[in-house]
Amino acid sequence: MQFSAKQIAEFLQGRVEGKEDIIVNKVCKIEEGEEGGLSFLANKKYNHYIYDTDASVVIVNEDLSLEREVKCTLVRVKDAYSAFASLLELYNQAMQQKRTGISSLSFVNPKAVLAEDVYVGEFAVVEAGANIGEGTQIYPQVFIGQNVKIGKNVTLFAGVKIYHDCVIGDNCILHSGAVIGADGFGFAPLEDGSFKKIPQTGNVILEDDVEIGANTCIDRSTMGSTVLHKGVKIDNICQVGHNCTIGYNTVISAQSGLAGSTDLGSNCFVGGQVGFAGHLKVGDKTSFGARSAIFSSVEGGKPMWGWPVVEARQEMRQMALIKKLPEIEKRICELEKQLADKR
Amino acid sequence: MQFSAKQIAEFLQGRVEGKEDIIVNKVCKIEEGEEGGLSFLANKKYNHYIYDTDASVVIVNEDLSLEREVKCTLVRVKDAYSAFASLLELYNQAMQQKRTGISSLSFVNPKAVLAEDVYVGEFAVVEAGANIGEGTQIYPQVFIGQNVKIGKNVTLFAGVKIYHDCVIGDNCILHSGAVIGADGFGFAPLEDGSFKKIPQTGNVILEDDVEIGANTCIDRSTMGSTVLHKGVKIDNICQVGHNCTIGYNTVISAQSGLAGSTDLGSNCFVGGQVGFAGHLKVGDKTSFGARSAIFSSVEGGKPMWGWPVVEARQEMRQMALIKKLPEIEKRICELEKQLADKR
Amino acid sequence: MQFSAKQIAEFLQGRVEGKEDIIVNKVCKIEEGEEGGLSFLANKKYNHYIYDTDASVVIVNEDLSLEREVKCTLVRVKDAYSAFASLLELYNQAMQQKRTGISSLSFVNPKAVLAEDVYVGEFAVVEAGANIGEGTQIYPQVFIGQNVKIGKNVTLFAGVKIYHDCVIGDNCILHSGAVIGADGFGFAPLEDGSFKKIPQTGNVILEDDVEIGANTCIDRSTMGSTVLHKGVKIDNICQVGHNCTIGYNTVISAQSGLAGSTDLGSNCFVGGQVGFAGHLKVGDKTSFGARSAIFSSVEGGKPMWGWPVVEARQEMRQMALIKKLPEIEKRICELEKQLADKR
Repeated sequence: MQFSAKQIAEFLQGRVEGKEDIIVNKVCKIEEGEEGGLSFLANKKYNHYIYDTDASVVIVNEDLSLEREVKCTLVRVKDAYSAFASLLELYNQAMQQKRTGISSLSFVNPKAVLAEDVYVGEFAVVEAGANIGEGTQIYPQVFIGQNVKIGKNVTLFAGVKIYHDCVIGDNCILHSGAVIGADGFGFAPLEDGSFKKIPQTGNVILEDDVEIGANTCIDRSTMGSTVLHKGVKIDNICQVGHNCTIGYNTVISAQSGLAGSTDLGSNCFVGGQVGFAGHLKVGDKTSFGARSAIFSSVEGGKPMWGWPVVEARQEMRQMALIKKLPEIEKRICELEKQLADKR
Repeated sequence: MQFSAKQIAEFLQGRVEGKEDIIVNKVCKIEEGEEGGLSFLANKKYNHYIYDTDASVVIVNEDLSLEREVKCTLVRVKDAYSAFASLLELYNQAMQQKRTGISSLSFVNPKAVLAEDVYVGEFAVVEAGANIGEGTQIYPQVFIGQNVKIGKNVTLFAGVKIYHDCVIGDNCILHSGAVIGADGFGFAPLEDGSFKKIPQTGNVILEDDVEIGANTCIDRSTMGSTVLHKGVKIDNICQVGHNCTIGYNTVISAQSGLAGSTDLGSNCFVGGQVGFAGHLKVGDKTSFGARSAIFSSVEGGKPMWGWPVVEARQEMRQMALIKKLPEIEKRICELEKQLADKR
Repeated sequence: MQFSAKQIAEFLQGRVEGKEDIIVNKVCKIEEGEEGGLSFLANKKYNHYIYDTDASVVIVNEDLSLEREVKCTLVRVKDAYSAFASLLELYNQAMQQKRTGISSLSFVNPKAVLAEDVYVGEFAVVEAGANIGEGTQIYPQVFIGQNVKIGKNVTLFAGVKIYHDCVIGDNCILHSGAVIGADGFGFAPLEDGSFKKIPQTGNVILEDDVEIGANTCIDRSTMGSTVLHKGVKIDNICQVGHNCTIGYNTVISAQSGLAGSTDLGSNCFVGGQVGFAGHLKVGDKTSFGARSAIFSSVEGGKPMWGWPVVEARQEMRQMALIKKLPEIEKRICELEKQLADKR
């Protein structure tokens, strides 16, 4: 996709200053401008970049005054920031151009039900009893097991795997390599030290507007459902164990994990590489700093951090004191010496 | 699959109390009962749930006495717990109904050897020299490289990848996205700061009854084999480096990792997000709490925990003292003040 | 592949001592020798293994003197170590025998451009606008999105997924399950507590000679590129967030992660399960011990370790003192008692 400065100005109801015909085909930051790049300048702090940027076109505020000549073509608009944001949105919609049609190289079981405008890419598999909602995009090499229900306008990127009986709500986005509904990790120990697999008879339910990162795993429950409520966003390479529940709009960063049966509240924020033990309950609106380890339930509502997790302010004090431990030990030695001298 | 209360009672040699024709099509916990759900009540502690549960059918002990009416249909049996367990087992066997046949949309190299009753799903690849045992289930989009040997009754879920020359024993289960036999991470530094890849000429051997979680990676060895002995169970998103050995019936929870050449004993239990450095030796029957970091060899036989790992009891003392560090520092200040005053 | 002792001796310009016709078909360590195995003995420390090894053929130094009879066949050469290394290299080249041809079971969009000698395996997908360099190997079930550019002699193992517009340099190796170019994790909070996805319009650039481990994810940037410079080596199950830059020849071990917009220098070494917060800058030639957590920028050039990361020497002191905390507290109690007694 490419646009001329003139087309951009027309769309934004702005004015071109420079070459009307110059073409852009990507967006970039003003300080990393490249030929063919479209950028914007909204913050005065960055005004100096305008003179040297290699971006071809820069969207600027109507009232920007220049101190000397610039190489780039300007598009002057009322509010450069919101103009750029609306262009970005448009760009994104264009990029996410809906794919359509069922590839003749896919396999859709005759007992699956597909709504209108569903895309099924090459070498994707949709098994018997699956039900796919309107406008859903199934990229190549996706696997959808028996009796899976998928809502409307869902995007499953290349290679997503969804085990039988799972349920995916509307507008969900699942990235490549995500695995939904693999068996929970449950084994009963036998007398000889070996283990017997405990059947995992439940499923996974992702409600509407959930996004799941690349190579993230959400395990099916032993009984009932592992549930991610509406609006949950999970980054790459995370693990959600069987029987967990994650509340509305909770956000989890990369490489974090929840052991089985943990109930994480709504509107929580979890940093990267965080770990929750199993069978915990965490209240709403709790945030966890990166690398936190949560071994017991948390009432919630406060920023937490550390190993084991404590209130973030306390963790910062503890971290500072650990760094001072060599000095602290010296002070103790000194005290011991003074006391010995006094005897 | 669905059953009536009557069918269940007949199978369990029990007695229906309520609607004989009521249908169930899933299992659920009594406290999370749903219409169409089958549950059980074996522990007196949970007796109160029987009056309000929305489960359609509940299996209870013969001698359960009710204080008031219940909504659900009861199936009375001698031992509710073991009756339910045997039903669950049956349910699971039915669900795991063996798939059969070689999909015409798969690719099986003519130089591969498949025993009877092997299932090969759509878009799966079995390369030359591979040898697949009786009753093994190869789901769609699985890749089996050259000369791989796979035992009997193995299940490879959708999208498993097995590199050339690896060996998988009988009854193993590998979940979606598991990667067996990718190159170990070995590079020789060159004088200019770049690296030369060290050929990884070995393979991976999974003995019988091994289960590998979704998106877990087991690397091939530089020479010889990376070996997981009989009965090892590994959860999702774990990493086993090249040349490692894992002993019989050892269990490893999600997101844990072993660096190269570590030898982990038998009957060990490893919590989630644990990390082992390379070239360590860990004795049998050792347990490691979640998030443990193991930087040196461990004799074994005891519960360990922490960063770096120590005996779990010691770790708990250390954790408690770290939380008390602010107080400890105050006590030192106080001592210093008292001593100064005495001068 | 198999060779006789005689063939090996001829190739190495050495001399057989034992059975000229004995056949080997694998390499092994001398202490783990197996029938059919080829090993070497270069270090005197291991001389005793020669008498008991089950390896069929062992390459030894010309001047090795035996104290008693050996079971194995010897091949005597000038320098056993370098002879074995050159054999290993040869073995590896033979094993990595280039695959050729476009499988009739793959899908290559007519608008993709493939150079000569490209291999495309079964059920692989190459979308419109993709450009694949000479000698590149695309294994089965790989996905290459629209407009992806791939250099020469690249190896993409089974199931690699590359999103649209990404760029892969020459000689790169990507292992199974690696995901290149999934959306960066960016969401704008809305007033009702839900989130709006921020379009990720950029791409990922892997320069030449980059190796990416199995199930590792490199996210596309919001604008511009996430860049891994020439010679970067990343192990399995790592996460590189959007807008990161990783310098020349930096090595990252398994299960480590970088949050977004972090700039990691050249010639760094990162141990396993390390985590970097976002928006940091790390200088060249810095090493990070396993499990380090980096929450702020690091000037670089020194070995670092810990949670939070400090210089490795300091971390070792801190770790030792944490283990001594119970003793330290006792010493404080003793001091308090002594002072109280003095009053």
